[in-house]
Amino acid sequence: MTQQTIAVGRDVRAEARQRAAELRESFTRRGILAVNLLSSPGAGKTTLLQATARHWQGRRRMAVLVGDLATDRDAQRLAPLAPTVQLTTGGACHLELPLVERGLERLGELDCEFLFIENIGNLVCPASHDLAEHLRVIVLSTTEGDDKPGKYPKAFRTSQILVINKTDLLPHVPFSIDAAVADALLIQPQLRSVAVSAHRGDAIGDWCALLEQAHSELILNGHVCHSNR
Amino acid sequence: MTQQTIAVGRDVRAEARQRAAELRESFTRRGILAVNLLSSPGAGKTTLLQATARHWQGRRRMAVLVGDLATDRDAQRLAPLAPTVQLTTGGACHLELPLVERGLERLGELDCEFLFIENIGNLVCPASHDLAEHLRVIVLSTTEGDDKPGKYPKAFRTSQILVINKTDLLPHVPFSIDAAVADALLIQPQLRSVAVSAHRGDAIGDWCALLEQAHSELILNGHVCHSNR
Repeated sequence: MTQQTIAVGRDVRAEARQRAAELRESFTRRGILAVNLLSSPGAGKTTLLQATARHWQGRRRMAVLVGDLATDRDAQRLAPLAPTVQLTTGGACHLELPLVERGLERLGELDCEFLFIENIGNLVCPASHDLAEHLRVIVLSTTEGDDKPGKYPKAFRTSQILVINKTDLLPHVPFSIDAAVADALLIQPQLRSVAVSAHRGDAIGDWCALLEQAHSELILNGHVCHSNR
Repeated sequence: MTQQTIAVGRDVRAEARQRAAELRESFTRRGILAVNLLSSPGAGKTTLLQATARHWQGRRRMAVLVGDLATDRDAQRLAPLAPTVQLTTGGACHLELPLVERGLERLGELDCEFLFIENIGNLVCPASHDLAEHLRVIVLSTTEGDDKPGKYPKAFRTSQILVINKTDLLPHVPFSIDAAVADALLIQPQLRSVAVSAHRGDAIGDWCALLEQAHSELILNGHVCHSNR
């Protein structure tokens, strides 16, 4: 194995943390709750955001940065519902802050209360990158199996909200919401959870209420309770 | 951004390619078809291998190396059916060859015709690592959406077989097998595909026939047709 320690003269990670903290602080000052959405491919992040936009239509303002390796398929689905910018990584497995910053420039003046950053579909790598969010949300679909929290611990440990999606498929798949939540709580005891069907619209109001509560906390206290940030 | 080019005195990637080629050649000499299974978390790789072992019981011999970030949950499911070693990456997002080599040491004398390497559930990073396989198989489940090939192109481009899993859920999800296959063929025109329900056992014989055909090619020709390897 070739392994060397190379001094580069500055702490790149500390700089990234500092930039993320500054951007988060600027969101806070503007009353914008930033939400980083993590999940496997196809767990329903985009469908959840579509349902969220429909639920809030005319009452709450949201904007979306949506990450993918290739194509603008997700942005095409979201753009009719909310200001959306597609971030294309060209193959990279997660979003990083500089790409988010470029996306924000393209979004322009942020006239919203909620900024969603839909990460690359990947339960591993995105968990290691702070995108200046106040809340990290992990979406787990019922078709993925209730054994996933323990198998992908970092994504669950660094999140504040667990959304269990595709409850409409519960009659057809071997999945226990109680087992999944219990497994996740072993890893992150402060994780709050909500079970929804984004496809059918079930319990979207409960999910939005969690976000609205977090937004209220941000406005009142300048931070969100239980956030690791 | 801090970016430097550092000469390390040897080409680490070329060494990894060479080691993979040598290990693949040793599998070929022993008549063992090595199969690297890629998919999102929860697409059904472990269930597919359970169904495969049951289908072949007493007729074909297989062994499994199964990768996860944490836990030995998958190995516990497979060990009753075939010689199995759990590879735990401790958080890393893909398998690499040295871990596979350590797993092979733990498997001991390989008395099998098929060696399955179940990769970490991740549609991105595993696509960049040659694990000495003859065949790379990508498993896409119907619940993930038929738009995934274009969004995760490298995993599809570097595979030889596409398994569409969870056909039992087709009546309940918005997914077209034809659309998914067409999207995948745009990326990799030589991809062969088979649609199965590993959970219910549907079309497992078709999947096993593809593997048996590849094994026959390996024995006859010393390589597998259409393999990129």
